Amino acid sequence: MNGGRILVFIIDGLGDRPIRDFGDRTPLETASTPRLDLWAQRGETGLVDPIAPGIRAGSDTSHLALLGYDPHEYYTGRGPFEAAGVGMDVRPGDVAFRCNFATVEEKDGRLVVVDRRADRIQKGTADLAAEFNGLAIDGVTVLVKESTAHRAALVLRGEGLGAAVTDADPHDDGRPVVTVTGESDADKKTAAVVNKVVQLSYEKFKDHPVNKDRVAHGKNPANVLLPRGAGLAPHIPSFPGRWGFKAAAVVEVGLIRGIARYCGLDVVMLPAAVNGGLDTDLAAIFAATQTALQTHDFVLMNVKGADVAGHDGDAAAKLAFLERLDDALEAFIAALPGGLHVAVLGDHSTPVAVGDHSGDPVPLILLGPGVRPDATTTFGERPCATGGAGRLRGLDLLPILLNLAGWAEKYGA
Amino acid sequence: MNGGRILVFIIDGLGDRPIRDFGDRTPLETASTPRLDLWAQRGETGLVDPIAPGIRAGSDTSHLALLGYDPHEYYTGRGPFEAAGVGMDVRPGDVAFRCNFATVEEKDGRLVVVDRRADRIQKGTADLAAEFNGLAIDGVTVLVKESTAHRAALVLRGEGLGAAVTDADPHDDGRPVVTVTGESDADKKTAAVVNKVVQLSYEKFKDHPVNKDRVAHGKNPANVLLPRGAGLAPHIPSFPGRWGFKAAAVVEVGLIRGIARYCGLDVVMLPAAVNGGLDTDLAAIFAATQTALQTHDFVLMNVKGADVAGHDGDAAAKLAFLERLDDALEAFIAALPGGLHVAVLGDHSTPVAVGDHSGDPVPLILLGPGVRPDATTTFGERPCATGGAGRLRGLDLLPILLNLAGWAEKYGA
Repeated sequence: MNGGRILVFIIDGLGDRPIRDFGDRTPLETASTPRLDLWAQRGETGLVDPIAPGIRAGSDTSHLALLGYDPHEYYTGRGPFEAAGVGMDVRPGDVAFRCNFATVEEKDGRLVVVDRRADRIQKGTADLAAEFNGLAIDGVTVLVKESTAHRAALVLRGEGLGAAVTDADPHDDGRPVVTVTGESDADKKTAAVVNKVVQLSYEKFKDHPVNKDRVAHGKNPANVLLPRGAGLAPHIPSFPGRWGFKAAAVVEVGLIRGIARYCGLDVVMLPAAVNGGLDTDLAAIFAATQTALQTHDFVLMNVKGADVAGHDGDAAAKLAFLERLDDALEAFIAALPGGLHVAVLGDHSTPVAVGDHSGDPVPLILLGPGVRPDATTTFGERPCATGGAGRLRGLDLLPILLNLAGWAEKYGA
Repeated sequence: MNGGRILVFIIDGLGDRPIRDFGDRTPLETASTPRLDLWAQRGETGLVDPIAPGIRAGSDTSHLALLGYDPHEYYTGRGPFEAAGVGMDVRPGDVAFRCNFATVEEKDGRLVVVDRRADRIQKGTADLAAEFNGLAIDGVTVLVKESTAHRAALVLRGEGLGAAVTDADPHDDGRPVVTVTGESDADKKTAAVVNKVVQLSYEKFKDHPVNKDRVAHGKNPANVLLPRGAGLAPHIPSFPGRWGFKAAAVVEVGLIRGIARYCGLDVVMLPAAVNGGLDTDLAAIFAATQTALQTHDFVLMNVKGADVAGHDGDAAAKLAFLERLDDALEAFIAALPGGLHVAVLGDHSTPVAVGDHSGDPVPLILLGPGVRPDATTTFGERPCATGGAGRLRGLDLLPILLNLAGWAEKYGA
């Protein structure tokens, strides 16, 4: 099969609930979004439960589903995708962790966490991470890579490692570093290595020049590595290989970049002004997407701002971001190639009243040749609820797009 | 997580089909139900297939699904839930049966059923049942408990019992008691015990004072116990334990009480005027629900009358019951606690034209903070079919309510 081009346009955290100050409308229903409204009018609309009705999807589980991977089969925890997101070469069988560079003090022979984020350290973490690379502990290769600020990822590679282990991170300041434990032999092996990594990080970091400099400047030293969220890296069949096309991802944040990279999509590098925030450079995201569409059959685009506003509980900011997004769409839409199929949807709802992801379904627009436009004329949760696509699940999206764009094989005769 | 209160309000057998005498409207669409209509207007509506589209759900399988237990995994037959419903302590691995106290006569050395319901015996069944308790047959403990009228439950407890056995009950008068059989060793063991229970019941009951008295009064003796509907008692994880809250059930009939008890809900005792019929004491049901909501996070309420009218094929009675229910809601609604989330729906359709459960979907209202009200303004099968919640399955209901009320954990990051 050889089909047409597909764009999956994710407005992260898009869905919301009625807000009294907005006359019991959602931010999307309230915002002036003439370009999205025109798309809703020209397209077919519906609601999507990213996982299933009521289930509060993470961005990771949702994106897996939207790419056609059942998260109940492929999602083994956040660690592997975080590690892939910072550019580590994570392989099936690896055990991966999210980590913080943190500040600890010795008290009664124990390491007690003083500052889980080491004053949100901005510089020098690459030097600290480099202390580990190539190191083997108990025959296990240890890989550490810094991410933004105090964040890092840890990958353990070796035979017979388990991932059902506790966190070293106590998750609160003032508490001692936790001794990692596991039940099975494989988990115990992992736990023993992680405990040695934590101890070794303290020995390597405490007098490291990076920290001597920090202390000299009155800042908390990043003198320990605190792993959490262990996950056994899953085997995920290549997304482009599975469908026989070239696929790219234009996404703002590391976790989703990690999902995309892990699934084999080409992850497009973006300028620093694309920062995953409310003031992100939308024009740069759209420009990168235009470019990617010239060389790829499938492009995943994720814009993060609405989710940030949802987490902040800031309805006005969510509304303003959606209006700014709609403004920026003007030039983007004008330059889109003909024959393109587009899906516009959220990866989950992040209602401002909740301040976190909720299990409410997200609105969807399907656009392009062959779709059956319905009576919906504006983009919003309620208008899309009566759309022709009905209520779908995240795993339904990719087959629908592959069908419309002509990539789908017939099932049967 | 610690969320808000939830009420699941089941109108048993609610759904129906268009009735010519009602101008091709259903009883619910025809009935004057201003309070339910107001709820439909304020809430989000939809249709629910209790199991899946077209599947004719029982009250037991439907309630399991609505409580979040996939009946394909947890439903092993009616016996265990009937037994739990009459207050027996059913344990995983037990084999449980529904039974009738019946009347048999000896003919040519066989027991032939004369009256499957022993003149719907009302008194003395506890004395008959007591003849069995503590008894062991082939090393298997035999427990019998009377239910209403001629009904009873039988529980077998012991090692290596199977439940794939035939019924002893021939299901028609004038036919001989059936010798119970099974295929596997475990099933054969159960069958042998049940056959001995049946034979023993005749020996113990035939000259029992209860029956001597009945015969003296011209009534058929309850001189045998006829088991049917064998089920291996499943292991069901505790409903309150699973979600971390307190849960209660205010329900009228034994089977649903059994489901609730089996799932670990507190089953509220109700006055005798709550009789599961068309003339049940609705005010008492609502009062008990109000009380339960003061001490429990989750309350399941089931009102049975509409189902009774459906089984009776009586459209006028179904309509009248729904109108009486709506009247009684006036005071109930006024006294509901703030912040409550409510789901109003049927557990299945019982169309009067069918006189039994059908596989037609049931209408749903979701009410409470955060729901997205839709354009539906009356409660009915057709109005709800265009509602914002779309078409859901029974298993979707609990996750949706847990999400709205703030009890749901995030899946992913």
